[in-house]
Amino acid sequence: MKDVKLGILGGGQLGRMLLQSALDLNLYTLVLDPDPDAPCRHFAHEFVEGSFADYETVLAFGRKCTVLTVEIEHVNCDALDKLAKEGIQVSPSPKVLRIVQDKGLQKEFYSKHGIPTADYHLISKRSDLAEFADFLPAFQKLRTSGYDGKGVVRLTDSSSFIDDAFDAPSVLESKIEFDKEIAVICARNKLGEVEVYDPVEMVFHPEANLVDYLFAPANLTQDITDRALTLAVEVAQKLRVVGLLAVEMFVTKDEILLVNEVAPRPHNSGHHSMRACRTSQFEQHLRAILELPLGVPDLTTPAVLVNLLGEEGHTGPAVYEGLPDALQVPGVYVHLYGKALTKPFRKMGHAIILDEDLNTAFEKAVFIKETLRVTA
Amino acid sequence: MKDVKLGILGGGQLGRMLLQSALDLNLYTLVLDPDPDAPCRHFAHEFVEGSFADYETVLAFGRKCTVLTVEIEHVNCDALDKLAKEGIQVSPSPKVLRIVQDKGLQKEFYSKHGIPTADYHLISKRSDLAEFADFLPAFQKLRTSGYDGKGVVRLTDSSSFIDDAFDAPSVLESKIEFDKEIAVICARNKLGEVEVYDPVEMVFHPEANLVDYLFAPANLTQDITDRALTLAVEVAQKLRVVGLLAVEMFVTKDEILLVNEVAPRPHNSGHHSMRACRTSQFEQHLRAILELPLGVPDLTTPAVLVNLLGEEGHTGPAVYEGLPDALQVPGVYVHLYGKALTKPFRKMGHAIILDEDLNTAFEKAVFIKETLRVTA
Repeated sequence: MKDVKLGILGGGQLGRMLLQSALDLNLYTLVLDPDPDAPCRHFAHEFVEGSFADYETVLAFGRKCTVLTVEIEHVNCDALDKLAKEGIQVSPSPKVLRIVQDKGLQKEFYSKHGIPTADYHLISKRSDLAEFADFLPAFQKLRTSGYDGKGVVRLTDSSSFIDDAFDAPSVLESKIEFDKEIAVICARNKLGEVEVYDPVEMVFHPEANLVDYLFAPANLTQDITDRALTLAVEVAQKLRVVGLLAVEMFVTKDEILLVNEVAPRPHNSGHHSMRACRTSQFEQHLRAILELPLGVPDLTTPAVLVNLLGEEGHTGPAVYEGLPDALQVPGVYVHLYGKALTKPFRKMGHAIILDEDLNTAFEKAVFIKETLRVTA
Repeated sequence: MKDVKLGILGGGQLGRMLLQSALDLNLYTLVLDPDPDAPCRHFAHEFVEGSFADYETVLAFGRKCTVLTVEIEHVNCDALDKLAKEGIQVSPSPKVLRIVQDKGLQKEFYSKHGIPTADYHLISKRSDLAEFADFLPAFQKLRTSGYDGKGVVRLTDSSSFIDDAFDAPSVLESKIEFDKEIAVICARNKLGEVEVYDPVEMVFHPEANLVDYLFAPANLTQDITDRALTLAVEVAQKLRVVGLLAVEMFVTKDEILLVNEVAPRPHNSGHHSMRACRTSQFEQHLRAILELPLGVPDLTTPAVLVNLLGEEGHTGPAVYEGLPDALQVPGVYVHLYGKALTKPFRKMGHAIILDEDLNTAFEKAVFIKETLRVTA
């Protein structure tokens, strides 16, 4: 990959794992992040401290690169437009990023393209809610700036409009009675070729609205699996995304699939691929954006992923407890993100547990979660 | 792994792959190498440009670390002695390194401990050879400073004593009629616990005396496999090495095992473990030296490793040809080392090919070798 200069907007754990894969392909790498202690800090050829949300900063950074990608969506798209015009390859495109940055635009995109999704209304301020009392129970989601369960509130009756609701542009989304939450990661290149990973099943933390465990494969009928794969590819094709697209979906009690949200980058729901699939999602993303052949995504071993979240009640420099006990368990792969500071429920790492028997893998995962703790 | 500062003497490809594993465990890393463009240059927390053979340089570097290891044997052991006395953990120990640095001491170590090895004589200068005419054919190996087939000459008759022989301290080693060359990697920790990888079979390049292909598993009877594992553990235990020990062996036509040489570090013959074993050799080395539980070394899929050597006739800035075609092949993992300059037969990378059928893997490996070429 002579002369490729790969710029990554965002220097968190996703960027870090991208860098690990970039090393294998001998890519020249640059990372932009505002945090001087970002997880990517020491592992790129060039680390630039600065805001990926700032026009001038992104422009100056991007001009040092031949290919730009993201590990977070909340980047300055105007700068990316300009860079694309200057001939720098930007994958995913600013067009895709704009849709993904705004949950309202995302929803409208689904509607426009006939992609099944939960019913919704767009509102611009709190008082707009009044006319949707009969739409409850529902979730109100901020159109922009939400992440990892933040920026979402559950509205059960109209009294909550006053107590809990956001007074900001948001999506009011019908509460789905779902049986499962799954995710499918699809890789797509400029030619429109796709490779798709098997669905994984996500089990959320009851309080933090964060994924605790992921199961690969998901426990689905073949019919649902096939439909989920088809749907993920459909979304990727209609978005014309280049790179990865993680598609989160609900499986309703009636076995209907509804797209929840998408992310055009490596995603938490694909971390198991580092150890359990023929091609890791990180290498796959690089292959897709660098116009290399897409890798085979096949799952080679059942896997459970457990997210290592910052312990409740602990904020400060991170301490990892129980690592020796965790590493005693066969088939466990620990990936720590190198974040300097922990806080409650912050994603600090993950462990992948491989086992031919998924139940055994889950038992091990529960042990890992109890054992390997991030405190301060 | 709070407060660990892991120093690596040597910044080549082995160090680079150690750093990739160190990232997963969130280790603070420092690398010492004289080459400002060393493969590790941008991927450690601290890269120190300097000679790992120089006493003062190693001393100053080591004092910044809590744990020191090597990715090359030819380091300054006097400095390591001093550092060990100062309380810095040095693994492998200077004692082991001194033995390994000197092929004469290695041979004497084997003799002293009843470890089977090819017959040999130690000579101090060319004229000493005269009395060993009846020992031919043999190999003359420089006691120190040889590597990757350099520092070795084949002596077939006494005329070659004058034309080809080294005039330096060396080992005159009986030429073994072997059936196979194999390697076994053993991990040992301070408590004397060991885990051992299955033997791999090495196929050498006819001219360059460098490994072209490795096969995992080796095609051996169960009896030979068992004896090879036992022998590798025996050498590791007798050396009292902490970390990995790669043990290269000959299997003679009479099915006798003879130890050829050892390396107390990650080794080319273990690269397949990155993708084909439960625990990669790099993580295993870290586990061993950091007093973490040793990982399960089981081979999960048959694998062939092909070394990507610099093309003959090409010296200069490296260009990788054929990467897209290589990545088209399912089950192929490419690892490029990021060396700035290529030269004939220089190790520039490797590819691991996984396939349930080892013959298919080999066919793919041959294709990769023909396709993915390093030129200048």
